[in-house]
Amino acid sequence: MTENTQGLKGVVVARSELCSIDAERGVLAYRGYDIADLAEHSSYEEVCYLLLHGELPRDDELSGFRDELGEAMVVSSAAEEIVDLAAASGASPMEMLRTAVSALAFDDPDTESNELEATRRKAARLVAQLPTLIARYERRRAGADPIPPDASLGYAENFLTMLRGEAPTEAEARAFDVAMILHAEHEMNASTFTARVVAATLSDLHSAVVAAIAALKGPLHGGANEWVMATLERIGDEEEIFGEVEELFERKEKLPGFGHPVYRTMDPRARILKRLSEEFSTEDGADPRWFRMTERAEEAAMELKGLWPNVDLYSASLYRYLGIPTDLFTTLFAASRVVGWSAHVIEQYADNKIIRPASEYVGPPRREFPALSQRP
Amino acid sequence: MTENTQGLKGVVVARSELCSIDAERGVLAYRGYDIADLAEHSSYEEVCYLLLHGELPRDDELSGFRDELGEAMVVSSAAEEIVDLAAASGASPMEMLRTAVSALAFDDPDTESNELEATRRKAARLVAQLPTLIARYERRRAGADPIPPDASLGYAENFLTMLRGEAPTEAEARAFDVAMILHAEHEMNASTFTARVVAATLSDLHSAVVAAIAALKGPLHGGANEWVMATLERIGDEEEIFGEVEELFERKEKLPGFGHPVYRTMDPRARILKRLSEEFSTEDGADPRWFRMTERAEEAAMELKGLWPNVDLYSASLYRYLGIPTDLFTTLFAASRVVGWSAHVIEQYADNKIIRPASEYVGPPRREFPALSQRP
Repeated sequence: MTENTQGLKGVVVARSELCSIDAERGVLAYRGYDIADLAEHSSYEEVCYLLLHGELPRDDELSGFRDELGEAMVVSSAAEEIVDLAAASGASPMEMLRTAVSALAFDDPDTESNELEATRRKAARLVAQLPTLIARYERRRAGADPIPPDASLGYAENFLTMLRGEAPTEAEARAFDVAMILHAEHEMNASTFTARVVAATLSDLHSAVVAAIAALKGPLHGGANEWVMATLERIGDEEEIFGEVEELFERKEKLPGFGHPVYRTMDPRARILKRLSEEFSTEDGADPRWFRMTERAEEAAMELKGLWPNVDLYSASLYRYLGIPTDLFTTLFAASRVVGWSAHVIEQYADNKIIRPASEYVGPPRREFPALSQRP
Repeated sequence: MTENTQGLKGVVVARSELCSIDAERGVLAYRGYDIADLAEHSSYEEVCYLLLHGELPRDDELSGFRDELGEAMVVSSAAEEIVDLAAASGASPMEMLRTAVSALAFDDPDTESNELEATRRKAARLVAQLPTLIARYERRRAGADPIPPDASLGYAENFLTMLRGEAPTEAEARAFDVAMILHAEHEMNASTFTARVVAATLSDLHSAVVAAIAALKGPLHGGANEWVMATLERIGDEEEIFGEVEELFERKEKLPGFGHPVYRTMDPRARILKRLSEEFSTEDGADPRWFRMTERAEEAAMELKGLWPNVDLYSASLYRYLGIPTDLFTTLFAASRVVGWSAHVIEQYADNKIIRPASEYVGPPRREFPALSQRP
């Protein structure tokens, strides 16, 4: 085993039409469309359609897709009860999501079918249902009544309304929508690969998504923007940032929100989120520190180590400005990425081969079985 | 991408001390002990200890481990409610297990710790708790009251008693225990690899196990012995077997219970299970057809294609003789394998690197974003 086969770095496990990355220039495109264009001109619903169906929707296709989402937003009573049990048990947000998404399969009419159209229908339902689960959990643990989903609203407006109990401004809904667009798909990361390994056994979409959530939960993967926010809260003062970053580097610790296995420049998603975070930082009542601290951290990391910020740095302060509790950040990542996972599962089914690597045995040689009384 | 990197065949992703396979001679060993010896002389509890701790337990260690299992057998009321919801919703056994195991994390005191001892404690609890979940589900869907776990019984006796509502004979408990021993670990298969990919993000043990269950659910992986049993039930007559196998081969379909990506001879687990299945087939009241049909299938597959039986062929008829419903077979696989998954997660944490392969982009080149009204 080499370093590279251990982490499979650079080992091509699939062909994909979903996402291309220009690591040197810092460009990310979904099916050929630059995410800067998608963030400026499209909606999360259009991006979902693009990823699941291959092309941007025409007007009638988009309204059909919005209807499909609207019809699926209310989750089963079993899923509701599981969210309530999770909130009452003190389960963490990702534990809740992993469990409740698994239960969404119980009454999904297409649960056992891996046909293309069935998988697309299930993917659309998951896109519609994850916000309902997350918002219900947040309301329940705050001791408040859940806000039912409203199919007449757009995805972002509905999600924020359910989550916060009050309608967002247009700017808030737009910023949240952009964050969802930017997290929707990112090639062969650990959670997407997990979804593909599961799908390659011809297991169903819900299984693949539950497994992907399980992987996203890991702090080396989805938890980074929660870690950014926790770090900013601990430091609390922009004047302290430079020294703190310096100390982290001296202790050879990882700086959350910086560096990326792929990009050799600024993560293009960070560039867009930075602008949004800056806008909200100057609003009435907003605490400008969160943005300023992240900006200082960016300067320090560049000066000290030539490190570029990644998507997690500015999504943290943006979500904070949108009034979202820090420990929900990873669930929002999942709510957005569920469409990317689903699109990868569709690709995996279309050209499938079970994924079964090898290991190298380094344990004891063959040995005799000792009776219980003979053991050292 | 080559055929081999797509399925990662032969690509070494980890070093492991758990399991060695002599593919030519058909020998499987856990940490150096031939499974034939383990099946003859040890118990599933001893094998769990061996896999989790590295050595077979001394007498006092074994009784300590049995106490640890006994204390964990009763699951939380949240997990019980989720099992009941699953049974009431008509969720499939693997959907139930994926969901309920996820919920076991809610009140696990070590849920967020990946320390070695914490992971071992969680693994022992999972070993103890999966039987309780599976048996409860079976009883609930049959409209019967759950049988509470009994810590004074051995693993196999307790499991079968809860599942069937009556105590097994000594021979039944022993045969079931052997089946659990034989399914406990098998190197880098798809579900074990899934568990490792999830653990490599430093996600927790419950997440890794839930993801592994999601992978095991796939018909290319864990579902094979259910498929064997369904096929035998469809055929129903040993005289028909040869013709049926011949027809399957002519249609180029896969014969369930035969062939293996690793073994080049008879799967050593199949050899042991065959003997047990044969013994039960001659008991009073047993239907000898299930064993005879599998034996005929073995002869036909060898004569027509030189194919060897694998573990799934004889576990199917053995489980049938033990009175276990066919659609629970894969959950039993999970109940046994959970210890192998856990041992792999422990190894992954000890020498970790995030597993992030690559994909090859084959989608559209960069393109301009079209306004909604301009789309074809």
